[in-house]
Amino acid sequence: MVDSARDTAEDLELLNRYWAAANYLTVAQIYLQDNPLLREPLRPGHIKPRLLGHWGTSPGISLIYAHLNRVIRRTGAHVLFVTGPGHGGPAVVANTYLEGTYSEVYPEVGQDLQGLRRLVRQFSTPGGISSHVGPATPGSIHEGGELGYSLMHATGAVMDNPELIAACVVGDGEAETGPLEASWKAPNFLNAARDGAVLPILHLNGYKISGPTVLGCRTDAEVAALLRAQGWEPVVVSGDDPGAVHRSMAAAMDGAYGRIRGIQAEAREQGVTGPARWPAIVLRTPKGWTGPREVDGQPVEGSFRSHQVPLPTVRENPRHLAQLESWLRSYRPEKLFDDDGRLVAELAALLPDAPLRMGALPASRGIGGGELPVPDAGPYAVDAMPRGQVKVHSTAPFGELLRDTYLQTADDPRFRLFCPDETNSNRLGAVFEATDRCLVVPEQAAGTLEHVSADGRVMEVLSEHLCQGWLEGYLLTGRYGLFASYEAFAMVSASMTIQHAKWLQHSRDLPWRAPVPSLNILLTSTCWRNDHNGFSHQGPGLIDSVLSLSGSVVRVYLPPDANSLLAVGEHVLKSKDYVNLVVIDKQEHPQYLSLEEARKHAAAGASVWDWAGNESDTPAADGHRPDVVLACAGDVPTQEALAAAWLIRRHVPELRLRVVNVIDAMALTPPDVHPHGLSQDAFEELFTSDVDVVMAWHGYARALHQLLHGRTRPERFHVRGYNEQGTTTTPFDMVVLNKVSRYHLVMEALRRTPRNLAGAEDLLGYCESMLRAHTTYIREHFEDMPEVKDWAWTDPAN
Amino acid sequence: MVDSARDTAEDLELLNRYWAAANYLTVAQIYLQDNPLLREPLRPGHIKPRLLGHWGTSPGISLIYAHLNRVIRRTGAHVLFVTGPGHGGPAVVANTYLEGTYSEVYPEVGQDLQGLRRLVRQFSTPGGISSHVGPATPGSIHEGGELGYSLMHATGAVMDNPELIAACVVGDGEAETGPLEASWKAPNFLNAARDGAVLPILHLNGYKISGPTVLGCRTDAEVAALLRAQGWEPVVVSGDDPGAVHRSMAAAMDGAYGRIRGIQAEAREQGVTGPARWPAIVLRTPKGWTGPREVDGQPVEGSFRSHQVPLPTVRENPRHLAQLESWLRSYRPEKLFDDDGRLVAELAALLPDAPLRMGALPASRGIGGGELPVPDAGPYAVDAMPRGQVKVHSTAPFGELLRDTYLQTADDPRFRLFCPDETNSNRLGAVFEATDRCLVVPEQAAGTLEHVSADGRVMEVLSEHLCQGWLEGYLLTGRYGLFASYEAFAMVSASMTIQHAKWLQHSRDLPWRAPVPSLNILLTSTCWRNDHNGFSHQGPGLIDSVLSLSGSVVRVYLPPDANSLLAVGEHVLKSKDYVNLVVIDKQEHPQYLSLEEARKHAAAGASVWDWAGNESDTPAADGHRPDVVLACAGDVPTQEALAAAWLIRRHVPELRLRVVNVIDAMALTPPDVHPHGLSQDAFEELFTSDVDVVMAWHGYARALHQLLHGRTRPERFHVRGYNEQGTTTTPFDMVVLNKVSRYHLVMEALRRTPRNLAGAEDLLGYCESMLRAHTTYIREHFEDMPEVKDWAWTDPAN
Repeated sequence: MVDSARDTAEDLELLNRYWAAANYLTVAQIYLQDNPLLREPLRPGHIKPRLLGHWGTSPGISLIYAHLNRVIRRTGAHVLFVTGPGHGGPAVVANTYLEGTYSEVYPEVGQDLQGLRRLVRQFSTPGGISSHVGPATPGSIHEGGELGYSLMHATGAVMDNPELIAACVVGDGEAETGPLEASWKAPNFLNAARDGAVLPILHLNGYKISGPTVLGCRTDAEVAALLRAQGWEPVVVSGDDPGAVHRSMAAAMDGAYGRIRGIQAEAREQGVTGPARWPAIVLRTPKGWTGPREVDGQPVEGSFRSHQVPLPTVRENPRHLAQLESWLRSYRPEKLFDDDGRLVAELAALLPDAPLRMGALPASRGIGGGELPVPDAGPYAVDAMPRGQVKVHSTAPFGELLRDTYLQTADDPRFRLFCPDETNSNRLGAVFEATDRCLVVPEQAAGTLEHVSADGRVMEVLSEHLCQGWLEGYLLTGRYGLFASYEAFAMVSASMTIQHAKWLQHSRDLPWRAPVPSLNILLTSTCWRNDHNGFSHQGPGLIDSVLSLSGSVVRVYLPPDANSLLAVGEHVLKSKDYVNLVVIDKQEHPQYLSLEEARKHAAAGASVWDWAGNESDTPAADGHRPDVVLACAGDVPTQEALAAAWLIRRHVPELRLRVVNVIDAMALTPPDVHPHGLSQDAFEELFTSDVDVVMAWHGYARALHQLLHGRTRPERFHVRGYNEQGTTTTPFDMVVLNKVSRYHLVMEALRRTPRNLAGAEDLLGYCESMLRAHTTYIREHFEDMPEVKDWAWTDPAN
Repeated sequence: MVDSARDTAEDLELLNRYWAAANYLTVAQIYLQDNPLLREPLRPGHIKPRLLGHWGTSPGISLIYAHLNRVIRRTGAHVLFVTGPGHGGPAVVANTYLEGTYSEVYPEVGQDLQGLRRLVRQFSTPGGISSHVGPATPGSIHEGGELGYSLMHATGAVMDNPELIAACVVGDGEAETGPLEASWKAPNFLNAARDGAVLPILHLNGYKISGPTVLGCRTDAEVAALLRAQGWEPVVVSGDDPGAVHRSMAAAMDGAYGRIRGIQAEAREQGVTGPARWPAIVLRTPKGWTGPREVDGQPVEGSFRSHQVPLPTVRENPRHLAQLESWLRSYRPEKLFDDDGRLVAELAALLPDAPLRMGALPASRGIGGGELPVPDAGPYAVDAMPRGQVKVHSTAPFGELLRDTYLQTADDPRFRLFCPDETNSNRLGAVFEATDRCLVVPEQAAGTLEHVSADGRVMEVLSEHLCQGWLEGYLLTGRYGLFASYEAFAMVSASMTIQHAKWLQHSRDLPWRAPVPSLNILLTSTCWRNDHNGFSHQGPGLIDSVLSLSGSVVRVYLPPDANSLLAVGEHVLKSKDYVNLVVIDKQEHPQYLSLEEARKHAAAGASVWDWAGNESDTPAADGHRPDVVLACAGDVPTQEALAAAWLIRRHVPELRLRVVNVIDAMALTPPDVHPHGLSQDAFEELFTSDVDVVMAWHGYARALHQLLHGRTRPERFHVRGYNEQGTTTTPFDMVVLNKVSRYHLVMEALRRTPRNLAGAEDLLGYCESMLRAHTTYIREHFEDMPEVKDWAWTDPAN
């Protein structure tokens, strides 16, 4: 498939000149605000007042880009370019500008002298563009700020994208991170018949910001052995002579491309019998290659000193200015650009035709499959009546909906579930009726496994980073999915969630990017029900981490039961451009709402549950005010709140009690903070303007107050939630330890009730005695431990 | 050094019987609440009502423990046992019980029948002990709940611990995580002359919870090649015949021990010339080995089905009960324990002498070096007068204090700085006057590097996980340190911070554990001053993540200037059992306080800065109430608040303004929530009980409200902070984008002032015009960009 014609010396010289053009524009972006083609002698006034950018990695990025263009022209391949060293932003911008995409997307940066002036001025400038690759960079699905995720994004992008090759530049800095090291195991999860190919290009230049890199200090043979041990077939391209490097790089690229197509042809004809040994390229070139050899007597090219701006004081120091000018002129810009400032024709001829340019690849803009056909939730709904009496694994019906989503996309796959080996444990195992876990294993290993095959589309790997990173790559190329994880361990990839939210916040303002399917994170095995695993498994911190992010992007749902999860789930799976956090436990829990009620409740965000309070039973002495509002959010807090309401209604029937359930946490925020925030009227309709509210909240108790700030008299909200108390114990003891049990809620509600009511004293005493009995029983008498009961929402003593 | 006598068949049979004893007690813990030695026929009543624990990994853990005991007895080695598969808690408890440590630490679990009954009853039982290895487990410095950190904890533990060998069990589940994969590069960071040795034991049993593992599907040769490529010298021990496995494991252990001592002897005699090829053991045995082969017709031993409780319904199902009894009896407990319930003498003879037992190792209890000699901060203090006029890189003087801390511990090293390649960038570079970056590189590479050597004690690796994990291992074995990171990327290891806080919260209640030096996290390059790197680098989320953790453990400091950082720094470096988060930017910032003032301020937590307000100038019409309080926390917010105060004092001199600076965020919380919380009186002394407070806060604005809940009228606090707005821009534009600029603060303060004051209207108009001018200038006119100025705290227009 590769045009096997060997490159002539002239071919490679042209390629080298294209590379010079990209390097020239990179340096120009870092330094110049005017005189972009050096048509005048360089003066201090042409230099930006603030020099901020990263030169060191840039020539390597441009070299790779140039060689990928060569392969694309020869083969017509669809190549996604993923830039791990995203701080090399000016190089990627330079290449997308040279290929024409940049000017198409940003017409104000045209292919002429005026456009070139704008190109260089805007870079890393207030009001201009970022110094890193980001959403605003054409062709990118990846922000290289927080390092570690390039190869997993590339891997996710090629899943179910059989014609796509994701070329992924990995710097030797990023290669030190854990998430990147984890990503090398991709060959075990890519099916050559139905998925595309990842081509890692490990770019070693030896240094991070100021220190050496681990891989940079190893020999070529050692680096190659590491990639080979991870299952790849590496080729090393190494040197500091451009001509020689171009020649070996061209051969390495052709070899890699040929190998990819060979693997795919075999798999697509004969099936997948084991993990393919995909090609990888190790490119070892000097850091800051073609830049200043020395500055003020210190070596710069090939050293950490070329990481950012090799000549730091160009404006003030005439010697540095002269050195910059000679550096820029060393690329011979007059031979690269014509009088109008356009790339000369013989170099433009090296660029791929418009549909194949890497900056314009549809997948990089979120254009993938069509909409997701999520089945109507009706058939999976559970019969929740009588309320609170039916117990169901709340996530199981949603698993059936996911199963049928798989089935409905079987012919045109665009949905995957990602999970660190907990799909069954999370009660989503119904999906295995539709598909398997994906693992490409050698034939001899496959026999002993259950629901495991190379054709599976459930992605299980014991790495939250990989699960989320693969999913992000899948979503950013226009497909749909869900990441299901233990609540506590979702914090492992919290920083990725934050970075993805930042990406969405900025990318949704770019009209040339398609909206991308939402990042859906389902947290099961919650803090309240890790009573068996203990304290390390008890942490609702991810809610806190997303609460502060942009309201335009984040959503936090706490469905109280199975039908509520279905209602939330059918919505979030199809949604675009959000980060949806859905928190619900996987264990058996009481059910409360019909599907129809659940859908209404989810749409409202929060509702009064009339059947749980008693306002209609008790004549209001002074209008319609309840004595106290008992609010709840999350399955376990809801169970406790309902049990508390039951106790109050039974023992203090005169107390006018309202129960409010919150399913959408953001409904609590003022509407100027989050679009889901209830209007002030709607909020007071639920919570009144002055009645005390006792709230049982799923997450950290105090975090809720940040949502409530701005509401009328927020100090009347008495929030109880997870308070970092835990151990291996019973579910009920967890709510006691954190003071959110039914008894605590009753006592708080009675304390907040202004009227003196018959039965209140007795009920208070009863609650205190129950807590004393519980604590004695758990803490002191385990030697005579009786049965551990799951106390239902009606009181066990009654 | 190793007793080279080959083991006789009898030696290995004894070892096998010891292993049977450990396995027996493991199964007994998972299932039994009585009849611990099966001296009666097993009845349903002997079975726990709730069966929760992990069998699958346990026999492998006990096998390794037994063989390490053998090496310890023969060599007198000091071995730390790190259990990556921490869910194998019952195995570690069994071994520490058999060796006697458990009963020493918990006398109620004695070495007799009564103690055995307690041992089995307490496991994974409410009121008993956790099912995972944790702080309560003797010998452990590691909780295996959140997987990924075992090998980095082991690596940190041996740094500056030349006689220690950290034997680290890594499961093939954990081996899939990114942080664990990153940890394999340890040989590049361990100096055989001065550090101890890590002995990884990669325990492959093929399965995670319900799926296969990647390494489990690879051949022995492939797994060995991977470890070899990472720089280790692996030996594979594989099989399912106990006798054969014992024989190869004994040989592998002897070989590994001999190799470690050989490497050390050579390095200590001849110096370190490159990374050592340390030994590693790959142990491949069946999951749930020696457990039930089949249950209800399904294979269990050697399959994922043995992960937790292989026989799930023993109480209800007589067939399962019988199968459990025969499983337990297969270990022949009557031959393992004597009449009194003690391990029989010939097996007890296999245990190390008391001082060398792994459960009792002093390092595992936090007993390491002595106190840390932190130099008095006096010599590093900057002259901050006139206030606000001197500009200094606020972190640089602290770097000098760290340098001298290194110098003062040079003879007895017990301090290290850990940083992802940002020590210079963070302006802590003075440390390189005392020591180098540590990297063990081959001699040919070392020549081109700066401040890099095998003898260095600054640990730089581009992995927040490794930096923090190594530091945790170093701290948990009694030494001191600091992790310095970019603020945004500290979220990468936020989950580790949470888990470490959980560890400290529980371990501080255990009298047999020494207090351990605090985890100090210094966040430099903050959200406000990543104007050059852009949005991905702007995130103060770690503050939010720690705010909700236990007040007994976490501390959050926001020193406003260099001397404040010195005052906080000299305190936190020496402190024990805390997680101290210290947030201050590395750039040049105005200075405000003398060292003496800073120390008082830090001790108080928050203070009125009289010199910045004007209460003393303006006679109070109604007592001592100010019209408004302007509060601030963090360097950039403080600068803006002080500039706002300056504007108000100049233009509206009648406004009685108080300025309060908060250096200890926890001072804001009510004292029942956090011990640093100011008393209500002290709080009102600063903030009054009713005056409006305009607060400029470093982190996410809304997060502060969770601290203030419980204070009088919290809604009078109008908090401005980071609001997830950012890009590549100027520092001043960052505060404008997030509405926390001096002008925004002035406008908010004027709006909150109840009196109508001369000059207020004019000042409001002025602020609005300045913001308009700024926004126009930044957003629309970058094409004619003038100099980017750093506007000082006095107004540029005045």
